[in-house]
Parts: sequence; C-alpha cells; structure tokens
Amino acid sequence: MNTRRDFLQILAASAATLPFLPLSGLANDLSKVDQSYDGPVLRVAIMGLGGYGSRVAEAMKACTKAVLAGVISGTPSKIKNWQAKYNIPEKNCYSYENFDAIKNNPDIDAVYVITPNALHHDQVIRVAKAGKHVICEKPMALNAKEGEEMVDACKKANVKLLVGYRMHFEPKTLEVIRMRNSGEFGKIMFFQGQCGFNIGDPNQWRLNKQLAGGGSLMDIGIYAINGSRYMVGEDPIWVTAQETKTQPERFKEGVDETVQFQLGFPGGAIASCLSTYAMNHLDRFFLTGEKGFAELQPSTGYGPIKGRTHKGELTQPHSTHQTIQMEEMADIILSGKSPVVPVNGEEAVKDLKIIDAIYLAAKTGKRVTI
Amino acid sequence: MNTRRDFLQILAASAATLPFLPLSGLANDLSKVDQSYDGPVLRVAIMGLGGYGSRVAEAMKACTKAVLAGVISGTPSKIKNWQAKYNIPEKNCYSYENFDAIKNNPDIDAVYVITPNALHHDQVIRVAKAGKHVICEKPMALNAKEGEEMVDACKKANVKLLVGYRMHFEPKTLEVIRMRNSGEFGKIMFFQGQCGFNIGDPNQWRLNKQLAGGGSLMDIGIYAINGSRYMVGEDPIWVTAQETKTQPERFKEGVDETVQFQLGFPGGAIASCLSTYAMNHLDRFFLTGEKGFAELQPSTGYGPIKGRTHKGELTQPHSTHQTIQMEEMADIILSGKSPVVPVNGEEAVKDLKIIDAIYLAAKTGKRVTI
Repeated sequence: MNTRRDFLQILAASAATLPFLPLSGLANDLSKVDQSYDGPVLRVAIMGLGGYGSRVAEAMKACTKAVLAGVISGTPSKIKNWQAKYNIPEKNCYSYENFDAIKNNPDIDAVYVITPNALHHDQVIRVAKAGKHVICEKPMALNAKEGEEMVDACKKANVKLLVGYRMHFEPKTLEVIRMRNSGEFGKIMFFQGQCGFNIGDPNQWRLNKQLAGGGSLMDIGIYAINGSRYMVGEDPIWVTAQETKTQPERFKEGVDETVQFQLGFPGGAIASCLSTYAMNHLDRFFLTGEKGFAELQPSTGYGPIKGRTHKGELTQPHSTHQTIQMEEMADIILSGKSPVVPVNGEEAVKDLKIIDAIYLAAKTGKRVTI
Repeated sequence: MNTRRDFLQILAASAATLPFLPLSGLANDLSKVDQSYDGPVLRVAIMGLGGYGSRVAEAMKACTKAVLAGVISGTPSKIKNWQAKYNIPEKNCYSYENFDAIKNNPDIDAVYVITPNALHHDQVIRVAKAGKHVICEKPMALNAKEGEEMVDACKKANVKLLVGYRMHFEPKTLEVIRMRNSGEFGKIMFFQGQCGFNIGDPNQWRLNKQLAGGGSLMDIGIYAINGSRYMVGEDPIWVTAQETKTQPERFKEGVDETVQFQLGFPGGAIASCLSTYAMNHLDRFFLTGEKGFAELQPSTGYGPIKGRTHKGELTQPHSTHQTIQMEEMADIILSGKSPVVPVNGEEAVKDLKIIDAIYLAAKTGKRVTI
C-alpha cells in the first residue's frame, strides 16, 4: 500500500521516462483529483479492457483514493492503447496466461475483474491465489455454488472480495435506504423493479450462453434482484417466475429474453420484477410502505438517477457512479470501512441463490423456497 | 324517450308543485347544462344510493344527454333525501321488492345498478325483464358464467347492457389508445398495471365475501385487467397469479388482500399487474412498445389522470369521469354510437373470464389458459 503522495511521485517519475506517451491525459488526471489528499491509495489493475472496463478506467481518473495501475487483457493492441492513455508501465501489464505473476508485483493492490460472466469464477480464484484483493463485476458468478467457492478462495487467501454493485453508493438510492431505516415509509409492503433494455449487437458475449451463463437476468435483471433486497431491507424467502421469449432466433436456448419474477419477504412485503433484453423505457424502482413511497426512475442507469418520495423530489447531487464506487471500495479494502449496503462476496452469493431460484421457478412453473 | 326540452319542461312543472324542495340545486343543474342541446335524453334511475351512486348522481348534473330521473333503494330515508336533492317525483321511486314495476314507468329509460357485486346478476336480469336498458357497475358479476347469463337475458329482452367502465371515455386514456392504434408505440411489448389502495371501514360490503364475491381483484384489480386489454389492444391468452395475505384478520377467507398476476397476449406482449387492498400509492399504468412508451400515473383514480409518453406530457383536459361516461352512454343507448373501447356486457364477460382464471391460477399455482 502506498499513499497518494508516493504514487504521484512514482507517476511523475514514470512519465519522465516515457517520452512517447502523451502527457495531456496525465495532466487532466492530476487536475481533477483532490491534491490535498494524502491517505492510502488503492492501486487497481483492470482485467478485461472492454466497454465497461473503459468506463471504470475513465471514472477512476477522478478518484483520489484509487488509481488505475495495471491492466490484464488478451489483446496486446488494447494493452498498448491503455498504457498510452493511462500511463501504465510495461511491468504492470499482463495477459490471461501470465497474470498469476501479479503475485510478485508490489505496485498492484487489487484486480477489478470485468470479463464475461463465465470467466469470473476461475479468474477471481486465480487473483485470490496471487494474494491480491478482488473486485468482480456482477453477476459475480453463474450460480451460487460457484459464488461460494469464490468466497471461500478469497477467505483462504486472506484477500477481500468485493462486487461491482455501484448502486450501493449512489446518493439518491442511499437516501431512500436511510428513509426506510428511519421508518419514514413505515412497514414496507411492496417493491417493484423494472430492469431492461433492447440489447444490440447479436454477436456480443452477453448473448452467448457459454460466456454469459444466461440472458437478461444475469446482466440487468440482477439489478432488480439486488435492488429488491436493498430497497425492502430483507432477503426474500420465496420466488415465482415466468419466462417469455418472443424472438428465439435472437435469444437462443439458455439465453433468457424476458423474465418476470415475484419475491416474498419474511416481513410480508412482496416484490414484482421484470428483467428483459427486448424492451426499452424500463428502469424503475418503486417502494411503498404503510406511511409513504419512493420512486427511482431511472433507477440503475449510468446517467443521473431521478427520484421522488411522498416528501418530494430527491435532490442529492449526481456523481459518476463508478467514481464513487471506486473511492468507497478503496476505503473498504484499505481502511476496513463498512458500507451501508454490503458489497462483498457473501452479498453476491445471496443474489446468485435468488437467480438460481428464479431460473428453477421459471422452468418448473412452481414457487421455489429460497 | 324524451328530448331534453321535454324533460326540462316536466322538471320545471314538477318543481312548481313541490314547494318544500330546495330549488337551488335545480337552478345549479340548469346553469351547468348545455341549454342549446335539444336531442334525445336518457332518463336514468339509479339502483343503490351509496357512495358511488351519489358520485354518479352529482356528476350527472352536468350531463346534457342523461338525467337522473328515478331511484331504487332499500332505505326509505335515502330515497327521501335524493328526492329532495334531485327533484325526483314519488312515482319514480322504487324499493328492491317492487322495482319490477318500473316496466310500466314511461319516464325511465335505463337503470344504473350500483349495488354490491353479488346482487348484480339477479338485479340486472330483473331490470332487463322489466324492459329497461341496464348500466351495471363493475365487476358486472361474480364470474363469467353469471356474466353470460346477464348478457343473454338482456339480449332476450332486447335491452342494452352497458358496464360502468368510466376509463373507456377518459381523454388521456383515449389518446394513448389512439397513439397505439396509429402505431406510434410500434409493436406492443409490455403493460404494467398497479391498482390498489388501503381499504378503510372493515364492515363495508367490499370486505364481505358473500356480497363482494372476492376482494381487491373484484373491485380495483379489475382496472388492471380491463386496462391491460385496452392498453395492449388484445385479449390475454394465459395468466399466472400469486396471492399474498399479510392481514388474515382483516381479509377473511375468500377476500383477497393482494394478488399479483401476469398475462400473456397473442402478439407476444406480456403484462405484470398488482391488485391490493393493503397498500397506498399504487395507481399506475405503463405501456411500452418497440418505438415508444406511455405512462399514466394516476391511471384510474377519480381525480385528474396524469400521463406522459415518449413524445411528452399528455395535456388532454380533465372532466369528471362519470359525467363523460353518462353522456357517452346516453349516445350509445339512444343513438347507437360505437365507443372506441366497448363497454357492453360482452366486454365485461371477457374481464370476468380473466378474473376466474386469476383466482384459479393463484389457487393452483399453475399457468391457466384463457
């Protein structure tokens, strides 16, 4: 672990020795960050340099407590581009074949795994065995069994395992959770989560059962699953589910297009959720209790979340979700901070158990106890 | 059938012979109506002088094509009050025992049945046998079998049977239907109907299985059922349903507290609906298609409906729903006008078949084909 001051010194030194790299990006980074911060800094390697990895990297430019320090990719040209863009030294670049050697790299504290779902299990366990903390994109795994193995591996290796639940740090979401905890909604009765979009490129890995492990439910429906838990404040005890497929040529066997599911909670609340890859205009959370309600719409998109409760509009300011997430995760990993809503592997396993139950309920047509 | 001019002359004459009745109400009525209208007028007797009957009577004050001309009630004091308030002559007042004699009353064209659900079947058939047109509040009956018998009885008697689907005439609702019909939403994918409220007085007939025939689904859930049909523009072919009861002491055996149900439509669209007597803040319709969406929130309450689509806010002006409904129903009965969305007995039977299927699906836990 280095302090930010140490890191900036190293970075400046590295930049001086890399004359062919554009310095403008570096200058921008430094101007955005809080120069007065001198606490510990989490040095992160991103594994998987696709669209979402790029989004996280861009967002991290504004972080004070976390920096992008390394990359892991199967595509050498991507590594070159990222090195140039983010000023990453050669020694912090890895392939999928050799990244176990990260064990011996004292300049990397944690690896953020942002690869296709089916790869998470093995990759996270390899990172853990290399002694680095792991942040893993959601869904953490293809099922609860895989998830539990990952949790165990990280415990055994004495590294932290966090999952990219960016909404757990989103200010309007946290305000709704605060209001619920303080009893402002009264007894919680109902949650509704509508999550979905009309997915594009038919050749992407998200539509490949082998890589995605499923369809919309794994990718976007999980927001409604996870959201039902942090909005209601309980874990569900039963689920019913209905799958519908209108475009079988687009959504092959094992890749769900649209799944509706209903959850029951110990306190009597119920949830009604929709997960889809075939519809737009669906991004809404709604919570109602005996005394009031909250509506977030959009509720999980990257853009500003909008929300209102029985008391009026939510006015918490927007910040880039991934920036807040990485700042907070640095605090969790480096300083043992406890987030309001957990983002650890155990939290992810709870969602994976619900995913398992939803697929089973949809297949059998029966109510499944969780 | 009389024209409005005839009716106003009769009304003026009656008022002159009833010196003890306050004339202020009458004066108000006359000032509100379109004095220039001289077409046919539907003379309506209201059966059941409870809360909703009163609402309809008040709304009819502003009608030009329909007038409150008679009452049927089991409570003589209510009849007296209504006679005074609405200037109704003694000869147009009936009890539940003697209302078959309405057959011989040339001053009544139609009876609006606004009594507890379980009474509709017999009362509607008696009105039909008395040769008067019938408007019946929703749900038209307790089940599809009853509904079909009512439709048959009205056909046999050659009278019209309409059902109090006031939303079928609501301007913002009609605008969404117009947009759908003109293809502005593209192929329809999803409808969501959330209907419910926290019901009050535990002694009301709506919480009595014998009188209500069920619980929230009969009373408020039917809006989501009917709404799914007029919003999607198709009739569903399957249903799944889940009932939950958190307050069995309040909602007895056979009186549903909360029912979630899902519908599948021939074109591939699905619906997600909630019906409840235990939660507030639920009054939302949402429709999404391949090209756009519509949201009505509130969607079925008496107050102004609010709505927006992908094109912006809906700005159609609000009028009292029951006033528009009665104006339009007068046109349907007297002039054979065809409404955009049917409001006849056959339309109600379609809803009742879905209600039957929802209760069966909730009970068996199985998907039910309609």
